[in-house]
Amino acid sequence: MVSEGEAFCPGHVTAFFEVVEDPDPRKKGSRGAGLCLGLGVRTVARLRDAPRPSLDILVNGKRQKAEVTQKVAEKILANRSCEVKILSECPLPVSQGFGVSAAAALSTALALDDALGAHTARDELVAIAHETEVECGTGLGDVVPASLGGMDLRRKPGAPGYAEVDRIPVQADLLLAVLGPEIPTRSVIRDPKRVAAINRVGGTCVDAFSTAPTLDRLFDLGARFAEETGLANKTVLEVIRASRMFGRATMAMLGNAVFASGNREQLATLYLKFGTLQRCEVDNEGARVL
Amino acid sequence: MVSEGEAFCPGHVTAFFEVVEDPDPRKKGSRGAGLCLGLGVRTVARLRDAPRPSLDILVNGKRQKAEVTQKVAEKILANRSCEVKILSECPLPVSQGFGVSAAAALSTALALDDALGAHTARDELVAIAHETEVECGTGLGDVVPASLGGMDLRRKPGAPGYAEVDRIPVQADLLLAVLGPEIPTRSVIRDPKRVAAINRVGGTCVDAFSTAPTLDRLFDLGARFAEETGLANKTVLEVIRASRMFGRATMAMLGNAVFASGNREQLATLYLKFGTLQRCEVDNEGARVL
Repeated sequence: MVSEGEAFCPGHVTAFFEVVEDPDPRKKGSRGAGLCLGLGVRTVARLRDAPRPSLDILVNGKRQKAEVTQKVAEKILANRSCEVKILSECPLPVSQGFGVSAAAALSTALALDDALGAHTARDELVAIAHETEVECGTGLGDVVPASLGGMDLRRKPGAPGYAEVDRIPVQADLLLAVLGPEIPTRSVIRDPKRVAAINRVGGTCVDAFSTAPTLDRLFDLGARFAEETGLANKTVLEVIRASRMFGRATMAMLGNAVFASGNREQLATLYLKFGTLQRCEVDNEGARVL
Repeated sequence: MVSEGEAFCPGHVTAFFEVVEDPDPRKKGSRGAGLCLGLGVRTVARLRDAPRPSLDILVNGKRQKAEVTQKVAEKILANRSCEVKILSECPLPVSQGFGVSAAAALSTALALDDALGAHTARDELVAIAHETEVECGTGLGDVVPASLGGMDLRRKPGAPGYAEVDRIPVQADLLLAVLGPEIPTRSVIRDPKRVAAINRVGGTCVDAFSTAPTLDRLFDLGARFAEETGLANKTVLEVIRASRMFGRATMAMLGNAVFASGNREQLATLYLKFGTLQRCEVDNEGARVL
């Protein structure tokens, strides 16, 4: 048997969040809020029956470690004996708070299930991707909102079955600006001091946002979260503040990056002083088989 | 002994070129013209005497294959028994025509020589980096101009001792836009058909440029080269043409990318429809120990 499946999962930015610990990775995760990005990961899964199973992962044409994607693929393949190629394309940078590992994991789960013709329940595929992100320490809350699209309010953490997420469709043109070096998510969420600072501020932001979940408030509460948690460095804070002249911006958690909405020309001119720039819309569809 | 050296090498874009074959990698290279970028590779080399030699290369904090850098380091270390860490930071993407492998190689050569206190002649370090790029097939003509800074007219190819390069200082604010997937240099310069097309057009461009090497002509001849060689895809050609309303742009050889100069706000707005954007000035200093 030779077969192929293809899926897309949007990138996802989180403006503010609170870490919720649990020994069960399907219950562990984050409360928070964010946006799905029109840019994300497109994955093709190619299978062939073979006596000796193999798993090759290429990201943007290059062989990569891609720990989360590999573990998700192994779970979905279980004991099947196939030669598998996972080919992912992604224009977003990794470790900059754009939810790339989540999008790679979920697009792989959907593409591989499609290639296998296994018809696993979508919620289960989303759960596998969430659980694996948590196990690898690469993220806590991108998978479920990325599966839904739009702006999200994550009221309760975890995988489908445990999570409670409001999906709020929004039309917005976004700028994404990378302003500094990568931040491995693990280095923050496995540091008890930083988690304590995050949770001191994050819970309040989530509660405040839930009373009126608008795009403007996502940015405003995000800017407060970035500053009060100490997660934003000087450049990021300066850029967030300067953005207020032309629109609104906040930090993409957890990256040395901001996302913004407003006067595109003026924001772009500002951001190009500091780093790399991309533009996209909000994705309101969520992860999907193509 | 524990010691450290640090160096910077600018990225480099080529607007047009001609491949000059030679069995000797120090004589092989390209004639052509381009610009040095204010963005490039900053490398720290850390050494420690050790009974068992080791070589670790981290690019932007991640362990990488970095073939050219590794070979350059091995040549410079010769038979010394050290533990070596090469730590490179680079905000530019690879395989997009920004001369990242050359900048990584040359900054490594300079940083490592500095850490060793070896005081190798600078021309020899540049030659090692050039020769290794050629051997690996990752580039033909970035190393020597990147060592010099400014705008370059490469009249004769090869490493120092063979190359003849005019360095023309220019003040310019550049936009770099990545518009499509990576192009491995090797896939083009090892394809005889494509090299034939390159050489048909490239020689004429170099000769025309040498009569009046200005920045405007670099862009205009580059645009002609990109189109007539068939190296530019539809998007790149469309973007180069549209840029004429606001300034000038041409393709960064060999990448799915352009570099541009002109009205920054309007060019940025145009490019953000297609891809990722960075801004920098021309680097007029060239590679240097820090």
